[in-house]
Amino acid sequence: MKLTLREIAIHVGGKVIGDPEINVSGVSEIQSSSPGTITFLGNPKYKKYIAGTLADAIFISDENHLDGKNGILVSNPQLAMARTLALFFPESEKNSFIHSDTTIDATVSIGKNVSIEPGCVIHPKAVIGNGSRLGSNTVIGPNVILGEKCQTHANVSIYGNSIIGDRVQIHSGTSIGCDGFGFITHDGVHEKIPQTGNVVIGNDVEIGSNCAIDRATIGSTTIGNMTKIDNLVHIAHNVSIGKGCLLTGSFAVAGSAIIGDYCTFAGQVGVAPHVEIGAHSTFAAKSGITKSLKGGKVYAGYPAREIREHNKREALFNEISRMRQKLDQLIQGAEEM
Amino acid sequence: MKLTLREIAIHVGGKVIGDPEINVSGVSEIQSSSPGTITFLGNPKYKKYIAGTLADAIFISDENHLDGKNGILVSNPQLAMARTLALFFPESEKNSFIHSDTTIDATVSIGKNVSIEPGCVIHPKAVIGNGSRLGSNTVIGPNVILGEKCQTHANVSIYGNSIIGDRVQIHSGTSIGCDGFGFITHDGVHEKIPQTGNVVIGNDVEIGSNCAIDRATIGSTTIGNMTKIDNLVHIAHNVSIGKGCLLTGSFAVAGSAIIGDYCTFAGQVGVAPHVEIGAHSTFAAKSGITKSLKGGKVYAGYPAREIREHNKREALFNEISRMRQKLDQLIQGAEEM
Amino acid sequence: MKLTLREIAIHVGGKVIGDPEINVSGVSEIQSSSPGTITFLGNPKYKKYIAGTLADAIFISDENHLDGKNGILVSNPQLAMARTLALFFPESEKNSFIHSDTTIDATVSIGKNVSIEPGCVIHPKAVIGNGSRLGSNTVIGPNVILGEKCQTHANVSIYGNSIIGDRVQIHSGTSIGCDGFGFITHDGVHEKIPQTGNVVIGNDVEIGSNCAIDRATIGSTTIGNMTKIDNLVHIAHNVSIGKGCLLTGSFAVAGSAIIGDYCTFAGQVGVAPHVEIGAHSTFAAKSGITKSLKGGKVYAGYPAREIREHNKREALFNEISRMRQKLDQLIQGAEEM
Repeated sequence: MKLTLREIAIHVGGKVIGDPEINVSGVSEIQSSSPGTITFLGNPKYKKYIAGTLADAIFISDENHLDGKNGILVSNPQLAMARTLALFFPESEKNSFIHSDTTIDATVSIGKNVSIEPGCVIHPKAVIGNGSRLGSNTVIGPNVILGEKCQTHANVSIYGNSIIGDRVQIHSGTSIGCDGFGFITHDGVHEKIPQTGNVVIGNDVEIGSNCAIDRATIGSTTIGNMTKIDNLVHIAHNVSIGKGCLLTGSFAVAGSAIIGDYCTFAGQVGVAPHVEIGAHSTFAAKSGITKSLKGGKVYAGYPAREIREHNKREALFNEISRMRQKLDQLIQGAEEM
Repeated sequence: MKLTLREIAIHVGGKVIGDPEINVSGVSEIQSSSPGTITFLGNPKYKKYIAGTLADAIFISDENHLDGKNGILVSNPQLAMARTLALFFPESEKNSFIHSDTTIDATVSIGKNVSIEPGCVIHPKAVIGNGSRLGSNTVIGPNVILGEKCQTHANVSIYGNSIIGDRVQIHSGTSIGCDGFGFITHDGVHEKIPQTGNVVIGNDVEIGSNCAIDRATIGSTTIGNMTKIDNLVHIAHNVSIGKGCLLTGSFAVAGSAIIGDYCTFAGQVGVAPHVEIGAHSTFAAKSGITKSLKGGKVYAGYPAREIREHNKREALFNEISRMRQKLDQLIQGAEEM
Repeated sequence: MKLTLREIAIHVGGKVIGDPEINVSGVSEIQSSSPGTITFLGNPKYKKYIAGTLADAIFISDENHLDGKNGILVSNPQLAMARTLALFFPESEKNSFIHSDTTIDATVSIGKNVSIEPGCVIHPKAVIGNGSRLGSNTVIGPNVILGEKCQTHANVSIYGNSIIGDRVQIHSGTSIGCDGFGFITHDGVHEKIPQTGNVVIGNDVEIGSNCAIDRATIGSTTIGNMTKIDNLVHIAHNVSIGKGCLLTGSFAVAGSAIIGDYCTFAGQVGVAPHVEIGAHSTFAAKSGITKSLKGGKVYAGYPAREIREHNKREALFNEISRMRQKLDQLIQGAEEM
């Protein structure tokens, strides 16, 4: 498949700089670009690669960086790259089929254009929406409702009564609706608190590989629309996560925490139980949130503090050795008096 | 199903305050309570919700908080809630069955009242105890002994020679008995140390989703009776964990560590190899245990210290800016003299 | 199976101290040694166990520690132990077979001496190399190339187009080739960046349970030869990991990071996106790498610093209370003047 810069520029809403009839057949990264492709300058730290690029064209947001090469001027080169990639890798029209090596209870309701790969097990009264695709060895528990155009990848487990919206992607090995970690210790015995609730996931959510999302003790653990979840993320029972959040790899949130809309958590962040985090909060990697925090701010550290306060504390460290020097001078001065 | 407060009070060993003939049909949480239910005041920070609750009754440990409402006085409202939930959600009597779409070696021994869901694979000489239930696509390796009334959920993997007690719950995606991370580097080559041991798990253990428990190099990795393990927990080879421990989400313990009885680890804690942790220790979230520690204490931080010492160190930070101010005043004073 | 010390000494290149005709039938650990075995003194902190050992012989690197017992003198007792274990537990010659309860597309190419356990699903055009073994319920995506003598354990998922070398071990629940966490936010919408690349894994790699290795956005996520990966490790898209690295449990590395050869990461370490880590670097547990770092050094902390600098900073803490005391004395002195 080949496209001219002119065609691509129309698709991404950009302006060709140079020859619009140049053909490219793919996208490459600037630090390892290849002939016959269009590349992009997303991260400015990669500007040094422009001069030597082998690509035939560059998505760029500043014409002056083109260095005489052909390019497409766009406001957001990374977005243009993403959309051009989608042009070159259109989602394949999958045939709908239900493989014979599956176990589907007679009470299951299956929509139109569904594909169910070998090894899938679907328990009683589950509902699979139109256009959804179940990867090999996916297990769907009783009464699960899976919306339209969802995709589970291989070896996914969805426990009974989970409710999942439309266009939700769930990657391999992920477990949704497992029991929350609820025990009450009484006379030295950890008595299990029955986990009777479920998990409710909104539309356009993506969940990475080997995550675990617990069902609620009572009620629902909820994930809002368009929230995106990376790999190996742990979400405990009764947690409520707003819409549009980004939960990066190895994030873990404890029971009954409430996370507002559009929060971003970098890798390995942890959230304590029962805290409430305001919308549009951003957390640096490895932060530990120990108490409720206002939205709209950037936080870091453990316990998580506003980033300016956090940075001040870190800077104090450098202060200490200077202070020690001054103090020693003072002491010496005092002794010499 | 409906129960009167009188019936519930008898079941949980409490005393009705108000009208004992009121009917409820479920349990709800105080912050989102609903009519027709009994709710509970577990966490005192939720006291503010009592006045406006829609529930018809409240489990409470202090009569004065009832605010004129109907309730049941108990010493532990959360425990009463757990036991009442179990009344409303009795464990369903599952039929025992062995689904035809399973692969069970002829040498496998299967007890009475066992249920084996579709897609399960049971390798030679494994033993499945009475009343145990294997979730869809569970894989049981050769010579595994699974006790009575155990449950594996979907897509669980148990490697050969693992020994698992009675009433053990294992959630989806968990892997038990995988090889320990044992290599010995020799002339630049990481030579594998054969992992020839197994995993031995006691009775009444619960293991969350997507955990990994390594087999021992020699001997056994052991998990004591009634230890409860949350999601995404990593337990390395030759680790020994006592009874009644609580290992919260994303906990990781390195090889040959020994953990005493009734230890509690909050989320994302890590334990170094070859350390020994005394019984009844408690660790704050994200702690890192780098050396052996005495039991019966609360620890925090990395390296983990007794919590009082840890808090003192944290408080020192606030001291620094005050010290700098004093120091600057002293210096100015000295210069002015 | 019994072996004399003489036979074992020849196998491991050691020298018998004592009676070479003594028979042993296994290897035991020094802290829990048993009669009829040979044990080893690997970690010097276990020296105290030599006197009371029940084992019949000891691998030892210093003859003086033998305490009159029989032993085999070797330069590396742990290596000798590993090789002796391999003598006692030879890899069983597995029959090659393809179980009938599998779904293998007609276009799949399968080498000689392959074994495929029940429940496996192999998608179109995949290639399974000679001598490879697929554990129960393994799912192999389209166009995957799996080399020779590989082993996947139960419930492994390998996404389409992954390329895996020879002698690679992949433990249960691991997901290889899942989508990278790539979204570009535009007018409040997280638009997915198509993840069009793949994962390329070298020879002699071992990957633990419940890991996740993302495919590249464009190009390949790469893992070098002989790199060993523990459980619950997250490797993001476009990451490049050199050869001979050791990635310990719960390690997480963000997108496009480049890690040189022979780097070692202890547990729960995190690496930020787009950083470059030089070869032969070593990182203490829970380190957080926030910027590119030179190779050949040992690092610790968050942000990760050279260990000497890290330790100095930690020591400053102890300084603070001493400084406060001195300062208070000075102030008192000044006031008394």
